[in-house]
Amino acid sequence: MARAQALSEAAVGLTEPNPRVGCVITSEDGRVLGEGHTQPAGQAHAEVMALRDAAARGHDVRGATAYVTLEPCAHHGRTPPCCDALVAAGVGKVVVAAGDPNPLVNGQGLSRLRAAGITVVDSPAEATAAVEALNLGFFHRMRTGRSWVRLKVAASLDGRTALENGVSQWITSPEARRDGHAWRRRAGTLLTGVGTVLADDPRLDVRLVDTPRQPLRAVVDARLDTPPSARLFEVDGPLVFYVADPTPERRAAIADRGAEIVALPSAGGASGRVDLAAVIADLSRRPINELHVEAGPRLNGSLIAADLVDECLVYLAPMLLGQGRGLAALPPLQALDGAWRYAFHDQTRVGDDLRLLLRRRTATPT
Amino acid sequence: MARAQALSEAAVGLTEPNPRVGCVITSEDGRVLGEGHTQPAGQAHAEVMALRDAAARGHDVRGATAYVTLEPCAHHGRTPPCCDALVAAGVGKVVVAAGDPNPLVNGQGLSRLRAAGITVVDSPAEATAAVEALNLGFFHRMRTGRSWVRLKVAASLDGRTALENGVSQWITSPEARRDGHAWRRRAGTLLTGVGTVLADDPRLDVRLVDTPRQPLRAVVDARLDTPPSARLFEVDGPLVFYVADPTPERRAAIADRGAEIVALPSAGGASGRVDLAAVIADLSRRPINELHVEAGPRLNGSLIAADLVDECLVYLAPMLLGQGRGLAALPPLQALDGAWRYAFHDQTRVGDDLRLLLRRRTATPT
Repeated sequence: MARAQALSEAAVGLTEPNPRVGCVITSEDGRVLGEGHTQPAGQAHAEVMALRDAAARGHDVRGATAYVTLEPCAHHGRTPPCCDALVAAGVGKVVVAAGDPNPLVNGQGLSRLRAAGITVVDSPAEATAAVEALNLGFFHRMRTGRSWVRLKVAASLDGRTALENGVSQWITSPEARRDGHAWRRRAGTLLTGVGTVLADDPRLDVRLVDTPRQPLRAVVDARLDTPPSARLFEVDGPLVFYVADPTPERRAAIADRGAEIVALPSAGGASGRVDLAAVIADLSRRPINELHVEAGPRLNGSLIAADLVDECLVYLAPMLLGQGRGLAALPPLQALDGAWRYAFHDQTRVGDDLRLLLRRRTATPT
Repeated sequence: MARAQALSEAAVGLTEPNPRVGCVITSEDGRVLGEGHTQPAGQAHAEVMALRDAAARGHDVRGATAYVTLEPCAHHGRTPPCCDALVAAGVGKVVVAAGDPNPLVNGQGLSRLRAAGITVVDSPAEATAAVEALNLGFFHRMRTGRSWVRLKVAASLDGRTALENGVSQWITSPEARRDGHAWRRRAGTLLTGVGTVLADDPRLDVRLVDTPRQPLRAVVDARLDTPPSARLFEVDGPLVFYVADPTPERRAAIADRGAEIVALPSAGGASGRVDLAAVIADLSRRPINELHVEAGPRLNGSLIAADLVDECLVYLAPMLLGQGRGLAALPPLQALDGAWRYAFHDQTRVGDDLRLLLRRRTATPT
C-alpha cells in the first residue's frame, strides 16, 4: 500500500477534479505485476493503468492482489467502472485504503467486488487518513458540495504582507515561495481579487515547480477594472472573471482577451460587490476540489468574514515591518469573542520561514 | 550527568544571578553518595550541597566521581572556591559538562583540580549545549557583559495584541499564559513600560506557576506617570523605575511607595525619553542574567529599533482580529532591507496556541 500511496502522490496536479489514486497489483509471493495512478480526467483510472501495465509486462493477474488507495469506482463516468475491470481481469483480492465518498460509489464498488467473489480487505486507519489528506479537496467536495478553500498569505511576524508603499518582494525566502507554488499546483483554481491585480500585476500561474498543467485562474473584479494589458493574459490557460456590474466597454475589452466573464448577483443586494459565496458555489460546480486564494487584505477579509475559508496557509517570515498592508481587512471588534478563529493544524520550517496551516475549527476532513 | 542536569533544572528561579548547576557524587560501582544543586546567591553551590548530602548520609567520598554540570568555581566570591572543596574531600574524578565562561574561572577550576591529582573528564557536546541552553542568560552576560533580553508578546495571527478598545484578556489560552509565567520565573528582571502600566495595570509578578522568589520588576517611565495606586505596588518584591525628568512631586509619590528610582540621561539628548541601552546596562550590572520584557508596542518598538532584543518569545493565537494594537511601533520603511530581522529558533504548540522563539541572527549562545 505504501507503493500505491507513493504513486497516488505522483498524480497531484494531474487528475483534477478526479481524486489522486494509486494502484499496485502483486502476485501471491509479493512480486509487483503492474502499477499505475489516475490520469487526467476522462482518461484511465489507477486500476486500469495497473492492469494495462501488468498486461504490457506479460503478467497474468488472475488470483492476484490489487492494492488501491481509494475504493474502485462503480459508476459509468467518463470512463467505465473500475470494479468491473478488476472483476473481468480475475483479480482475487483487493486491499482498499479508503472508501470513495462520491455518492455514486460510496461502498457500491466494494459490494460489486464482493459479489463477484473477490476478497476485499480494509487498510489500517493511518492509510485511510493519508488518502483523505492527499485528497482533502475531493473528500470535502463530495461531502459538502463545496470546494476546499485554502487562503495563502506570506507575512512578517507582525502580520504585514507589504510595506505602506506596496513593496512586498520578497518578504519570504526562495524556499517558501517555491513551496507556495507546490501548493498552487495542487489546486484546481487560483483565485485573486482585482486589488491584487492592480497592485502586483501577477501572472497567477505555477512557475517555480514543474507542473503537468496550469490551474484555472479566477479573479473577483466587480466592475472589471483589470487592464487588458495585465500579465494575467500572458499565461496560456483558462481565466475567468467574476463580475457584478461592469460597463459593456469593460466587458468587451476583457472578453477580447479570451477570458470567460461570469456575472453574479451583487452581495447583499449592494451594487458593485460580487457575492463571494456565489463565486465559491460556481467554482465548486465546475467542479473544483481545491481552491487556492492569493489575494489582498480586502478579498481575504471578505472571505474570512463570510466564513468561506476552510484552511489558512501562512508563511511567516522572521522579521518585523512595523507598518504596512495587513493580512485581512476585517470590521472592528468590541470584544474578543467576535474574533475570527481557526485551529493550528501544522507548523513546519521552510527555508528561513515558518509555514503554518490552520483549519476551520470544525473542519470536515479529519 | 543526566541526573546532575535534572538537579540543575530544579535551580531555575532560585540562583539568580548565579548559574543553574547540578552535582551528583557516585561511588566506583555507580551508587549515588550525594547530590545537590546551587542555592540562592551567597549560599552553597551544587558541589558543596552534594558533599554535604554525602556527609549527611554517612558516605565517604574519597576516590569518588563527581558529575557537575558546570566547571567548579576557582575564586572566592560570596562563597569559597568549589574546586578547593572537591580537592579537600578527596574526590578522585570530576566529570564536567561545560566550562565556566566567568573570566574569574574560565578553565582555572579544572586546572586546580588537575594540579591536585584529580582526573578531569569532559562530557559530550550535547551535554555542554544543554548546560549553555539552561544558563543562556549567564553565558551571555559572562561573554558580553549584557543581560540576555527576551521580549515576550501574545498576538493574533495578524499581529494584534489587543483590540482598538484595549481589550486583550485573553487572546491566548490558559496553557500559554501559564507557560508565559514559567518564562517569567526564569528571569532575573521583568521589565515593562509606563504605557502598559496605564493601559493594563499589571502586577508583573510570577503567579501562575510556583516560584521560590519574585524577580526584580522594572518600569521605564520617563516622567513617572505611574499612579501610586498601581497594582505594581501590591506585590511584595523589589521594584525599580527608570526615569528621565520627573517632577519632584511625582518622584516623592513613587518613592513613598518604597520603589527605587533610577534617573538616566535622556535618549539622544531628547528630553522625556529614557535611554534604553542605559537601562539594559544598569540591569546587566546588578547583575541580571535573563531580562524578560512584557510591554506595549512603544517600548517593544524602541527596544527592537535600538537592536537591544536578543530573543522574541511569541505566543501566536489561531485567530484574526483585523484591527487593534500592534506588536511593535516601528518607523516606516521604504524598502524591505530595512526590516528588523531575527531567526526562528523553535516552534511548539502550547494549548491552542503556537509558541515561537526567534533569536538575534548572530545570537551569541549557540
